[in-house]
Order: sequence, then C-alpha cells, then structure tokens
Amino acid sequence: MPGISKRGAGMPSSPIRKLVPFADAAKKKGKKIYHLNIGQPDIQTPQQAFDAVKNSDMTVLSYSPSEGYEWYRDKIAAYYKSIGADINSKEIIVTAGASEAINFVMNSCFDPEDEIIVPEPFYANYNGFSKAGNVKVRPITASIESGFALPPMEDFEKQITDKTKGILICNPSNPTGYLYSKEELEVLRDIVLKYDLFLLVDEVYREFVYDGKSHTSVLTLDGLEEHAIVFDSVSKRYSACGARIGMIISKNQEMMSTALKFAQARLSPPTMGQIMGAAMTEVSPQWIKDSIGEYDNRRKVCYERLSAMEGVTVPQPGGAFYLFVKFPVDDTEKFCKWLLEDFDHEGETVMMAPGAGFYATEGLGRQEARLAYVLNSEDLHKAMDCLEEALKVYPGRV
Amino acid sequence: MPGISKRGAGMPSSPIRKLVPFADAAKKKGKKIYHLNIGQPDIQTPQQAFDAVKNSDMTVLSYSPSEGYEWYRDKIAAYYKSIGADINSKEIIVTAGASEAINFVMNSCFDPEDEIIVPEPFYANYNGFSKAGNVKVRPITASIESGFALPPMEDFEKQITDKTKGILICNPSNPTGYLYSKEELEVLRDIVLKYDLFLLVDEVYREFVYDGKSHTSVLTLDGLEEHAIVFDSVSKRYSACGARIGMIISKNQEMMSTALKFAQARLSPPTMGQIMGAAMTEVSPQWIKDSIGEYDNRRKVCYERLSAMEGVTVPQPGGAFYLFVKFPVDDTEKFCKWLLEDFDHEGETVMMAPGAGFYATEGLGRQEARLAYVLNSEDLHKAMDCLEEALKVYPGRV
Repeated sequence: MPGISKRGAGMPSSPIRKLVPFADAAKKKGKKIYHLNIGQPDIQTPQQAFDAVKNSDMTVLSYSPSEGYEWYRDKIAAYYKSIGADINSKEIIVTAGASEAINFVMNSCFDPEDEIIVPEPFYANYNGFSKAGNVKVRPITASIESGFALPPMEDFEKQITDKTKGILICNPSNPTGYLYSKEELEVLRDIVLKYDLFLLVDEVYREFVYDGKSHTSVLTLDGLEEHAIVFDSVSKRYSACGARIGMIISKNQEMMSTALKFAQARLSPPTMGQIMGAAMTEVSPQWIKDSIGEYDNRRKVCYERLSAMEGVTVPQPGGAFYLFVKFPVDDTEKFCKWLLEDFDHEGETVMMAPGAGFYATEGLGRQEARLAYVLNSEDLHKAMDCLEEALKVYPGRV
Repeated sequence: MPGISKRGAGMPSSPIRKLVPFADAAKKKGKKIYHLNIGQPDIQTPQQAFDAVKNSDMTVLSYSPSEGYEWYRDKIAAYYKSIGADINSKEIIVTAGASEAINFVMNSCFDPEDEIIVPEPFYANYNGFSKAGNVKVRPITASIESGFALPPMEDFEKQITDKTKGILICNPSNPTGYLYSKEELEVLRDIVLKYDLFLLVDEVYREFVYDGKSHTSVLTLDGLEEHAIVFDSVSKRYSACGARIGMIISKNQEMMSTALKFAQARLSPPTMGQIMGAAMTEVSPQWIKDSIGEYDNRRKVCYERLSAMEGVTVPQPGGAFYLFVKFPVDDTEKFCKWLLEDFDHEGETVMMAPGAGFYATEGLGRQEARLAYVLNSEDLHKAMDCLEEALKVYPGRV
C-alpha cells in the first residue's frame, strides 16, 4: 500500500475537530450545545444575494475568467475606493474563499523551506496552508496580558533569517479580536521595507470594529505598494460563507501575474458565488451597520459576563467576532471536552475552541480558548450561565 | 521589492494564453472566431440545476461540511453504484472543481521532489498542479501514430525511480480523446501493484464515449482499492463548469483522511454548486444520452473533415470532446497565431490550442494542436472550411 506524503502526515487538524465526536455524543444524549467554537455567523445573508441568483437568466453555467468576472472586479474596486484604497480591477483576483487566496499567495511568494513570520495566537488554518506549501511558520508570541497587541519590532527582528520572505497578520484578528492600530501597521511597514519582505494581511473582518475605532487597511499605507498583499472575503462581511468567494488584492504586478497563473491552472472561481458577491456590493451601509451593531451587543454580553467570572482573563477585543480568553483551568482541551462530555447546566452546555491549536509554539495556550460570538444575545447569556456554573465545578480548576 | 518564488516563476502558462491577445485583436477587427481552443461546452446546463437554486429557501448561505454535504455525497455514491463502482459516501470528498481535487491529492500523496509519471500529451494544468506542489512530472510519450494508446509497460518501468510515487492518466483523455481499454488499465494495475504506486485517474469525461465503446472506471478493477484515486466533476457531464464542483473518490482511507485535512483547512466547497450538483444527479439518462449524441455528431464532422485534408493526421478519438491533430505546418504556435492575425476565410477564422503545451518533453507536439468540438455542427463545418482554406495558403506549410 503506497504511503501518504510527509506534508500530508504533518497537516494539523483544526483545534475543533477533536471535539466533534464528543459534541455529537452530547447531542445524542439530548444536551443542547451553544456553539461558540466556529466563525459561522447566524446573521441572515442579504436577500439581494439570493435574488440575484433567482433572477439570473443564465442557461449555460460556464467558467468565469480565472481572475473573476470583470463586472464583479469593477464593483470590488469601487468598494475599495470607498474605504480609501486606490485599487483597480487589475489589482484583484477573485478566489474560492480567502483560503484559496492565501494558498495562491503562499505558492507565488514562497518556496519550500522559506519562512513566514506570524504573530501567535493565529488563525489555525495558516498552519495548514503553510504545510501544504511546505513553507515554515516562525511564530512570534503576543501575550494575553497586552491584549494581543503587536509584539515589539525587536521580537520580529530576532526571527528574521535569510529564509524569511514575509510576515502574515490578520487584522482585526481571528482568533483574538485584536485590532491593529495604524501605528502598529507602520511598525510592520518599517520591518518589511528594511528587510524587503512581503506583508500579507488577512482583512476579512475589516468592517467588524467597535468602540468607535476605525480599521486601517494596509492598502492605504504609503510605501507598501510592492509589499502589501491583502486577503479578503464576502464570508463574514455579508454572512455568506458558503459563497466561497474571496480575493487577493495587491499592487505588486509581478506577484499578481504569478498568482494569476495558479488561478488559471484551477480555471475559475465559483460563478454563482460571483453573481451573489456582485449583488452584495449593493447592500446598504445600514445593513452592514446593523450587522456590526448586533455583533457589538453580543461582544458586550460575552465580555461583561466573562470579566465578572473569577479567575478569567479576557482582553476587550476591538474587532472581529472572537474573544480569546484565559480560564482558571488545567488545560482547555480537557476543559472543553469535559464541558461536552461530563457537564450540563439545565441540560445545556458550551462548545469552544481550545487555545493551544492557535499557537505554533508547543505548550502555549493551554489555559486559553477562543469564543466566537455568533449567537444571539439571549443564547449568549445562557452560554455564559453554563460557563459560569462549569467553572464552579470543573475538577481541573486551578 | 521582494521577489516571487521559484515555483511561481516556473508555473507554466496555459497553451492558449499566449494567443488570447491575438484573438482579442482579431475580434476588434471584426473577424469571427470559431473557438475550438477551450473545453467550455455550449450545451445548456440542465434546468433542474437552476431550479434547485431558485427554489431554495436558504436564509443563511453557510459553510457546508469540508467533505461536502452528506445528502449530496449520498447521491454521488448512488451514481457510482449505477456505473458499477461500490462507493459509499465516506469514500467521497467534494471539492471546488476537479482542479482542487487534484491539488489535495498531490499534497496528500507527494512531497517536494517526488515524481509522478504522466503519459504525454496530457492536460496542461497537470503541470501547474505539480509545480504548485513541487512534484516532478516524468512524461512518457504516447505517439499520434498509435492514436495515443498507452505506451508499453517497459516505457513506464524505465521512468520509475525510488522517487516515483504515482501514475496519472486522464480517461478518456483531455487532450487526445483517447479512451483507455480495460486491458490497458490492467497493465497499469500491474505496474502500480508491482512498484506500490498510486494510480490517479481523471475520469471527468467518463460518459463521453463513442462508437459503442464503454468506459472502464479504475474504481471497478479488483486489487486497486488502496491504489486508485479518481477525480471527477460535474463540469463536463452536466455542462456546469461554473458550479466548481469536483470530487475525490478513493477507498484508501489513509489517503482520504489526509486529503480531508487539506479540505478542512479551506473550510468547504461551494454551497450553491452542491445544491446544483445534487439536483443534476436526478437528470434523466436520456438527457445525458442526447448530450453525448450531439457531441458524437460533432466529432464525426470534425474527424471526417480533417481526415479529408491533405497532410493532416487525425486519430479517431474514442471519447471526451477533443481531437489531437497533426498538421502539415512548421509550428502550430505560429500557425495558430497566424490564423488569428493574418488569415480569414470570408471574415472568419479558427482558434486552436497549440500542441507543444500539452507535452512535458521539450520539442514535441510542434506540428500538433488540440481541437475541442464544443460548437454546433454547422459552426464546426464553417470552422473546418476555414482550416481547409488556411492550410492551402499558410506560408509555413511543410
């Protein structure tokens, strides 16, 4: 029997997968589970998206251009202009989700054994994309005590070798909710210019910012035209994860024409998703505002309830829809499993993503977990009730 | 300015891309072009597919499971049973087109510098997927004189090294239209069992077979359970290329659970495409039969017309919707460009894919070109008129 590849063997499982069998078993026993473990929003997808598909008079569901339909890229460019980034349709490649965008950029910028610096905790799938491309992740640890702010420039410089080709951040961050300030992005600019690196920024949560803060897209910083590569997606902004429409945005023409070759090899992004995506660019600013307002309420519920729990450390997140929380427990992998297997509060419990899976450094994140506030406030209150009760009785409490 | 990767620099362009500017220029001059250069069928997508989307009462366009919806995979499994392959839903992973399927399998089975043997001419994008995964393609040349039949076992054995991990074929073949017989597949079985290799078979054209021949899926051959990996797609079968729905089918559980990890990293295949795909499994056998009948007529038009042209060598294809043709010209890259730039017959001309791009061996295929018969018979006759006239006046005729 032929064996699988080393890169396949080394592919990490997602931090949540291991818990799925326990969640399934809990459901079978009739337990109600509040799913705070994944970033699948419950907000209704704008009706425009469904209408666009229903009203389409297409008769042959054909390939689109590999870079995406021009009429869609024109709309995306207009959206970028509206957020202050001077982007034209040639600086956009439409992909099957931001995941494919990251994959193409990894392949375009990095060779096997090249290195990419990523502040940890980071979106766990960055590990997977790196592994797939045989690219080496060098983590820099951000601390929960600082609210997961950007580590100092010296920490980056210590990790830079002659193999380093880029830095990758998510802003605002999945999994921490941290919103990088303009000043922090300028520090990153200094580093990438000094060492001639690519700066990859995952901005899929761009609109999800709170407390009157504003998001700075790396595309609006001067001097980064050849360095900045942005990943974007309709999944979170429009609650349309299943469209599988993401994009690469960059002014670096050599990189874009290289990424296009990878895009051409896979022929085209989804046609229906692009029809929906184009319709969603017409969604009213009020729809987005209402959606963010709803998340903000949820954020406050979770943040206030968690802050009131003894022994829990919870930085107030400035963006996205996640909280990265430190619990007074021995090990969140055990705690999360126990919540599903051995605990219930009035027949209900909570599922969270254990923190260790978001770190590349072995041993970190053992007391941390990620919570996605993608449920309505009433359910979130009940989920917090469960957590509060659970922390009182969990045998591994420290 | 940071530089792109070596793998990016080495990514081949598709054999057609270079011609696109000349086609655009010709169109601007008012020339009508018969596009025989790409495999985009003109057959209408079954109405069921559009109806399924229009009738959906979905309100949140959410992620599907990474392996695809179970209700869709159940239908795919039933389809496989109908063609004599005992496949269950756990042996299926739904992907964003067969392209993503190939990508996941490349990553799951091969490490950088591992080798895969592919009979040439082959689907040009196999080069791209190999390059992306840093896998090395070892070509074995099939000859136009033999109609592109499987080269003898000795040719394969000569290419096998300790780096060889698999053999990849397309059956029936894009670009040659060659339909591998059961006996040829048994030769491949002997080789992969003897050397413990994976046998990757792209069967997306499975239904497209002619002259009363029948297709043998490698999934129906005994003894290959751990070796055979099939790529499939709704694109050609149902004329639904834009759905971006493909799949990996294999009984090798270790490989499938590895491929699933790559699938999990990219979250999910397109949701709308799966809804359409599931509806299309209900398409009547008569629809498929009519579609194949239409392609068969087109094949006959092209084959008969080309056979009658002096100096043209054209093997009769047993499947798919391509002809791989040898022309009495100096170089088909020049010839195809000349057809667009310098030639017209009553204001019309033809676009084809030059042959060299389908070979990995430098210098081969210079007199060959691929023609996709994806136009109606009337247009194909006109396209053949153009070719016939062109061959009379082309300055590089040999």
